[in-house]
Amino acid sequence: MPSAAFDVTGIGNAIVDVIAHADDAFLAANGIEKGAMTLIDAARAEELYGRMGPGIEISGGSAGNTMAGLAALGGHGAYIGKVRDDQLGGVFRHDIRAAGVRFETQPSSEGAPTARCLILVTPDAQRSMNTFLGACVELGPEDIDETLIRDSQVTYLEGYLWDPPRAKEAFRKAADIAHAAGRKVSLSLSDSFCVHRHHAEFLDLVERHVDILFANEAEIGALYGTDRFEDALEAVKGLGKVAALTRSEKGSVIVSGGSVVEVPAEPVERVVDTTGAGDLYAAGFLFGFTRGRAPELCGRLGAIAAAEIIAHVGARPEANLAELLRAKGIAA
Amino acid sequence: MPSAAFDVTGIGNAIVDVIAHADDAFLAANGIEKGAMTLIDAARAEELYGRMGPGIEISGGSAGNTMAGLAALGGHGAYIGKVRDDQLGGVFRHDIRAAGVRFETQPSSEGAPTARCLILVTPDAQRSMNTFLGACVELGPEDIDETLIRDSQVTYLEGYLWDPPRAKEAFRKAADIAHAAGRKVSLSLSDSFCVHRHHAEFLDLVERHVDILFANEAEIGALYGTDRFEDALEAVKGLGKVAALTRSEKGSVIVSGGSVVEVPAEPVERVVDTTGAGDLYAAGFLFGFTRGRAPELCGRLGAIAAAEIIAHVGARPEANLAELLRAKGIAA
Repeated sequence: MPSAAFDVTGIGNAIVDVIAHADDAFLAANGIEKGAMTLIDAARAEELYGRMGPGIEISGGSAGNTMAGLAALGGHGAYIGKVRDDQLGGVFRHDIRAAGVRFETQPSSEGAPTARCLILVTPDAQRSMNTFLGACVELGPEDIDETLIRDSQVTYLEGYLWDPPRAKEAFRKAADIAHAAGRKVSLSLSDSFCVHRHHAEFLDLVERHVDILFANEAEIGALYGTDRFEDALEAVKGLGKVAALTRSEKGSVIVSGGSVVEVPAEPVERVVDTTGAGDLYAAGFLFGFTRGRAPELCGRLGAIAAAEIIAHVGARPEANLAELLRAKGIAA
Repeated sequence: MPSAAFDVTGIGNAIVDVIAHADDAFLAANGIEKGAMTLIDAARAEELYGRMGPGIEISGGSAGNTMAGLAALGGHGAYIGKVRDDQLGGVFRHDIRAAGVRFETQPSSEGAPTARCLILVTPDAQRSMNTFLGACVELGPEDIDETLIRDSQVTYLEGYLWDPPRAKEAFRKAADIAHAAGRKVSLSLSDSFCVHRHHAEFLDLVERHVDILFANEAEIGALYGTDRFEDALEAVKGLGKVAALTRSEKGSVIVSGGSVVEVPAEPVERVVDTTGAGDLYAAGFLFGFTRGRAPELCGRLGAIAAAEIIAHVGARPEANLAELLRAKGIAA
């Protein structure tokens, strides 16, 4: 790929995660859809926060996690997303910059506070997410830094951007700039419920605007209206694009130029919290992709980054992933 | 002890911890005293935060941690401390209440923001703390709930309260109310540098106002001007009070009614972050003490609670400590 100042620029909902442990009874009693990302309003956020146990706050947001992961691998990343000029917005800004990611989006100075995601982690390490979008609803095309997009090999967009009202315009603007500059556009389908909410638009996006697609089994099944992975895979092959389909402990399947490779999951001693697994898989994959690596190695890098994130609470890497690769003898 | 609605009311600096990993070179380059609690102003907090790595936010504060620990053991605790009505103040309030601790102190609505402690954890699991006291400077005698103090078997005070200007008045008022109601007053010396800052006052406090003293080796040595633990122990024995002296992996020494018992440390598979070890020791000890348990069992309860906290990042318990005791077959 032609060189660029940045490997990847991620665009997403800028969110601080509030993570607490809970049991299945708590999810049931509070009407929380297990394993899903559910949008909640300010009143519901207040109510649910009041009921949940003591939490930890840690910067999150799907594309934000991916960019932090890319930086931890040694990649050059930038991020576009909207926080408010409040304390949690300061936390988000600090953390993504401290991770080594360029982040210059102007915070909003009025309106809703910085977004938060109330995440309940059950003893099976599954996470159920309840997102109050807050200031994310202010993200619009005016926040897209054209120079930055042109200077990035890949512009990476999270499907969740379809939820706030104006972010999709930002999304389309960024995709157009990227393509006009000969760059690649990548999309994560984010969540199967999100795919259902925006089904027709996502189908169009995937067919016409996306070069590199990330989805897990449930998401790709939702996109193509099938419960059978094999059928979804056939549909993906028909697109003629690069796609990485993740299957949790069954590893991932990568479609590229008509060929299909399967990559096993990386072993994990104990799965603690699956939050961010898909985000970090995308980080590893894009790190390899922007270095021109073969699909199999891209998938392995994704698997390694995902394995690190699910071994601890929180969706931002704790380990120096570049050192982890060196320790495994992987030249990426 | 006569029964009361609360086992312990803790009074302390209400702080949200911001925890990041760092190496010794970072501490040296930024002039951070390893292992100590250093007070910093708003400008230094901003500067240091800008330099440190991505963090996690988690409620802290020495006495706050102790009360959360007491509640996790099944005890009835209350807390008095000052936050502001800002986002981090809301986090602190949520977390301590969600832990099961009564917390009704009015937040300040102007002035400095909620306190934060920038904690750097080095690979040896040692923590170096940099505290911006923020809204804690507003705590005063008007915040002491007299009914609450009278209804608590023990009023527990952290030595750090001597740092903000008016908290010591609150401290003295609470001690007087407690004693007038026939209750006990407990003090943690908090930090050896804190002991040096307030040496004469701490000596007077310990001799005249405190019934149950907590200190680690460095702190009790600072109080009595000696590097020899044996000499400090002799001085403590001369007080004729209850005292628990903690010695990290060497366990603790408990002085009570002229007798001295040694309690071993609880084994820990891997020490990750020592933040909160002393706070949780005090939680376990006071849980036993308010149930009339023998000093040795009180010390063991302290050791168990401390062992849980140093096995993970953050100074609030992740485990249900009451279940942990049941699993160990300890009736407390």
